[in-house]
Amino acid sequence: MTRYLLTLEYDGAAYAGWQRQKNAVGVQERVEDALGTLLGQKTVVYASGRTDAGVHAEGQAAHFDAPRALEAKRFVYSLNALLPDDIKARSLIPVPDDFHAQYSAKKKTYSYKIYVSETPSPLRRARFFRIAPPFDFDIFEKALEMTEGEHDFRSFGNTGSSQKTSVRTIYSAGAVKNGGEITAYITGNGFLYNMVRVVAGAALAAAKGRIALKDIADMLGGAPRPIKVKTLPPHALTLVSVEYDIGDRRS
Amino acid sequence: MTRYLLTLEYDGAAYAGWQRQKNAVGVQERVEDALGTLLGQKTVVYASGRTDAGVHAEGQAAHFDAPRALEAKRFVYSLNALLPDDIKARSLIPVPDDFHAQYSAKKKTYSYKIYVSETPSPLRRARFFRIAPPFDFDIFEKALEMTEGEHDFRSFGNTGSSQKTSVRTIYSAGAVKNGGEITAYITGNGFLYNMVRVVAGAALAAAKGRIALKDIADMLGGAPRPIKVKTLPPHALTLVSVEYDIGDRRS
Repeated sequence: MTRYLLTLEYDGAAYAGWQRQKNAVGVQERVEDALGTLLGQKTVVYASGRTDAGVHAEGQAAHFDAPRALEAKRFVYSLNALLPDDIKARSLIPVPDDFHAQYSAKKKTYSYKIYVSETPSPLRRARFFRIAPPFDFDIFEKALEMTEGEHDFRSFGNTGSSQKTSVRTIYSAGAVKNGGEITAYITGNGFLYNMVRVVAGAALAAAKGRIALKDIADMLGGAPRPIKVKTLPPHALTLVSVEYDIGDRRS
Repeated sequence: MTRYLLTLEYDGAAYAGWQRQKNAVGVQERVEDALGTLLGQKTVVYASGRTDAGVHAEGQAAHFDAPRALEAKRFVYSLNALLPDDIKARSLIPVPDDFHAQYSAKKKTYSYKIYVSETPSPLRRARFFRIAPPFDFDIFEKALEMTEGEHDFRSFGNTGSSQKTSVRTIYSAGAVKNGGEITAYITGNGFLYNMVRVVAGAALAAAKGRIALKDIADMLGGAPRPIKVKTLPPHALTLVSVEYDIGDRRS
């Protein structure tokens, strides 16, 4: 048996999220089916974490056990021939037997894309959350940067049943601007359920002048979430990458 | 009667191109239907030019005649409420009665998007033409730049019935790179049918080492198109903007 770390890119629009489900199709099901066909046995795939319905991934990481050693490039090619157009493998690397895509993860990076325009943008509608001006980019960026460090993020999301604490460390957060296209980035050691969409929603509320930066500082100090801070929609959220401490390996 | 210049953005994936057709839906039909409803009369829309099936527009320009003066911002808002998600109006400006979206156009800019990657990219599949490495960006850029100036582009496209000459002037052409994402830009006084997709195909063939830059120079000199120069697929082509000489107006 050899354990492998698989990096996946997917367009989440057509899926009920990562997780295999009874009455809807999850990305996991498509990947497990393709791996099962190639490996000739039922194969379970463990991801770094679930992504919600409609959320995309540039670099979701997942591990599985193969009954034999695999030739990475050829296997990725064969796997991609079986996977649908909206899910593709990017790379495959062998990992130690005790590696776990979720528990071994050290850092995750998400992006949230916003488009500032008076009119809707057909070419951006699948990946951007469109907002009308005014929008203060500097405040948006500052609001994101305020989340850097170790904080109790209980006002930014739900812990979920398996997570005991709502304390997380954000290593870096910020935003880049390209015309009306704005991408927020956030890298941390983990995220509560909905946390990135609420962080982006808080930064957006500040950038729109609906709340003050101090309100975000208060939220980080445990104050309840103001009603003007919305959980932004999933279609503009992307899991960019997951990092591990196995030599220099990254996914 | 007042003539208006309407700027439109559309995702061409679901359409048989700009032009109204008998057995398929063109973008023009959707725009004319929405304008007809708003203006209370059958309205014909004249575009700067047709876009092919699957081709997108950031800034297609089109004119129409309205029976009354329109309040631009409100009209665009109402029009967008009637248009489907994949077609939206961006702006509306009054123009002289002799203005014509096609014949008054001075410059058009197209972009063609390429993604260089060993593996297919689900998140880019709708807008990028994916190619496997190797890809020499500098040669790609040089090949595009070679098209600048006045040339007979007969080896790069078809003139079509209404166009008498295959001589066109390219004001600027080049490419920008962002990771594996490469965008070719070309601005000219007009383009033959398929011309941008063949220019991009020629630059790509050079960047892949399948032809030499001299072959492109020869094509510009009238030599027939080498078999290794392909017409690239439409889904990565976008009509970015159309410019007019009416004061400072641009679309």
